[in-house]
Amino acid sequence: MADIIIKNAYILTMDPDAGDIENGVVVIENSTIKEIGTSTECSADKIIDAKGSVLMPGLVNTHCHAGMTIFRGYADDMQLQDWLENHIWPAEAKLTDEDIYAGTRLACLEMIRSGTIAFADMYIHENRVAQAVDEAGIRAALSYGMIDFGDKEKADKELEVGTAFVKEFNGKGDGRITTMYGPHAPNTCSRDFLIRVKEQAVKDNVKLHIHVLETEAELNYMKENFGMCSIHFLKGIDFWGTDVLAAHCVWLSDGDIKILAEYGVNISHNPISNMKLASGICPVSKLIDAGANVCLGTDGCASNNNLDMFEEMRTAALLQKVSTMDPTVLPARKVLEMATINGAKALGINSGMLKEGYNADMIIVDMNRAHLTPVYDVASHLVYAASGKDVSATIVNGKVLMEDGKVLSMDEQEVIDIAVKSSKDLISKINN
Amino acid sequence: MADIIIKNAYILTMDPDAGDIENGVVVIENSTIKEIGTSTECSADKIIDAKGSVLMPGLVNTHCHAGMTIFRGYADDMQLQDWLENHIWPAEAKLTDEDIYAGTRLACLEMIRSGTIAFADMYIHENRVAQAVDEAGIRAALSYGMIDFGDKEKADKELEVGTAFVKEFNGKGDGRITTMYGPHAPNTCSRDFLIRVKEQAVKDNVKLHIHVLETEAELNYMKENFGMCSIHFLKGIDFWGTDVLAAHCVWLSDGDIKILAEYGVNISHNPISNMKLASGICPVSKLIDAGANVCLGTDGCASNNNLDMFEEMRTAALLQKVSTMDPTVLPARKVLEMATINGAKALGINSGMLKEGYNADMIIVDMNRAHLTPVYDVASHLVYAASGKDVSATIVNGKVLMEDGKVLSMDEQEVIDIAVKSSKDLISKINN
Repeated sequence: MADIIIKNAYILTMDPDAGDIENGVVVIENSTIKEIGTSTECSADKIIDAKGSVLMPGLVNTHCHAGMTIFRGYADDMQLQDWLENHIWPAEAKLTDEDIYAGTRLACLEMIRSGTIAFADMYIHENRVAQAVDEAGIRAALSYGMIDFGDKEKADKELEVGTAFVKEFNGKGDGRITTMYGPHAPNTCSRDFLIRVKEQAVKDNVKLHIHVLETEAELNYMKENFGMCSIHFLKGIDFWGTDVLAAHCVWLSDGDIKILAEYGVNISHNPISNMKLASGICPVSKLIDAGANVCLGTDGCASNNNLDMFEEMRTAALLQKVSTMDPTVLPARKVLEMATINGAKALGINSGMLKEGYNADMIIVDMNRAHLTPVYDVASHLVYAASGKDVSATIVNGKVLMEDGKVLSMDEQEVIDIAVKSSKDLISKINN
Repeated sequence: MADIIIKNAYILTMDPDAGDIENGVVVIENSTIKEIGTSTECSADKIIDAKGSVLMPGLVNTHCHAGMTIFRGYADDMQLQDWLENHIWPAEAKLTDEDIYAGTRLACLEMIRSGTIAFADMYIHENRVAQAVDEAGIRAALSYGMIDFGDKEKADKELEVGTAFVKEFNGKGDGRITTMYGPHAPNTCSRDFLIRVKEQAVKDNVKLHIHVLETEAELNYMKENFGMCSIHFLKGIDFWGTDVLAAHCVWLSDGDIKILAEYGVNISHNPISNMKLASGICPVSKLIDAGANVCLGTDGCASNNNLDMFEEMRTAALLQKVSTMDPTVLPARKVLEMATINGAKALGINSGMLKEGYNADMIIVDMNRAHLTPVYDVASHLVYAASGKDVSATIVNGKVLMEDGKVLSMDEQEVIDIAVKSSKDLISKINN
């Protein structure tokens, strides 16, 4: 007896060998996909009829600061330094671990609602992030965000916290939680610290998650201080020699692109955040042409201001087309790959594709809606017309987290109410 | 006795004299706003409690080809000429007036659902567009799209159809329908024809709706054939001397911007379509700085691929920030103005603001949702976090077209089913 059978779906498998399956069936057993095809002999405890809907791999958000969801809309339309120094950092200084837990629960709720099955996170009080992820039922690759600013004592302390986090949480939540080391960026971490973190990551066999060349300011800083850009600097300390998830990668030369592709670096493209903060435009189509693994991320809610990966897909396609003046780049199916297969690869999880033996991480998108009518090409609608609000069901690790638009793994109103309270307390702390 | 009272709302009036009103009340009588404030002595037949919601002017979509909604997702990720010549035009040649009626009903349904209260349209079989608008209860400024390609006989015929349309439909639907003349573009209409159309528009006291400098190809064509760009060319025939709604305006010089501002031309910025077709980027912030009236439009669904004006607002802000490398341009409230006040001005309707004596054209946005939590600044959420799917009620001309997410003026499933049938018939006609 299987656990769940989903039937009558239009299945976008994202499996290049299988293609799309009309009127398809998926059988889930013990957190994995047992069968996928047009029929099954199996029976199951739970049958979901997905007629009129698309069944597809859930989306993977490869760069997030989930705790920052508590800052959604707190400060917008500002210069980056003004935003950081006068608004975000002073507010972050007042954050308690309870606020981050509340913000992360809110983020998990929004992600489950909008069809995200896994995310990569980098933030502070990351143990409370792990707690929220564990309870919400979603999958995540978590890292404690470390900054030393060249201070040896701070470096020791940061690495201690980061190492303890990896040891405690890797593999938790029935394996849904994995960990990474999160040195913040090449211009906020010293060369020595980056080397130490990298060695620790190799030793612990976990990945690295880092911001790279988000801004021109970082490029200028690195050139002034090291005579080279971040990509070459990190190559010089063999940082790329292990498995790295590099967020943003906006300010790349053609030579940088070659290096990133050569070393198999996973690049998290965050178009909405890059546009909103006027950071610049990542040369995604060049990276893809060079063979790099480019995936998608929302960044934190303070610079997005939501966690809807469907919007991220659409914006990635639109931005790349207009910036290259070529409407054929990043076609719909390529963008879907970025948000599923490529994202899963970046996180090292067996998801992103609906295929026998893969994690049962999938979503159902309801197509019987005015703005998704008529249908000529399912992939086109998912990228150019849909949004996370069209997701009716989200399944992670074989557990139904949302069904018929109702979230089952969390008390939605409670999560919202607690986040509201947290934000109000925060405002009064900041004003006092 | 008033018709409707909406109470307990956070009112974003968009009226610069009134600002936002917390716990506000709006009284609607005879299709207009009778009162707005924090309390009322009036009673009404219908009371709507908008606690936890934002009440705001409905959005105005200033450039659309509603009938093309039947082509949603029909052809994407292509070069413009390939898209037009090998896909859109052959498909349009097979369109019947029933298809356009079905497509426009679908468009109206989607617009009502996503908080649009009025749109400007240019297309063929425009009488059936008018019928759909009349029945749906939405407001629209309609124009028959005219192209002569320098053919005198075709010019006569086109102007005849256009004039008949204006005479028959201006003021129809309890005044919700107004009309414009719609000469397609400076590179598809002859100089003589543009002069004749302009004179007819002045005579009939209606506006002009035209595509201008959407593509670099138009700019090159105009320079080659007339030794000047479209803006100067149209100035030369005093086209700007009357009230014009000019869509796109992507390829503008600083001199062009000065002319558009000087003549008070209404400019419909369509960022998503311009990005998707890789047409280029309209210099919106320069236009605004020059004093031009810039509003927003979705363009047709074949190049968008939905009609969600919230997405258009967000994309307009994001695109302008990254293209100018300045995160402070087009802040949230400025973008809201573009989609409300500026759009209403472009259409010549007394909407776009919640103020005594204005049309009762407004929407309710439900803020009790994970992705809109917490709230620090309502305007920020409306632009950067919300979408049309957060609209719970739409009121046009004092009539409730949608309430609690249920569309009242149309049979939603019937509209969807007929559009699906139309698209299937179309595909078999195209393939035969």
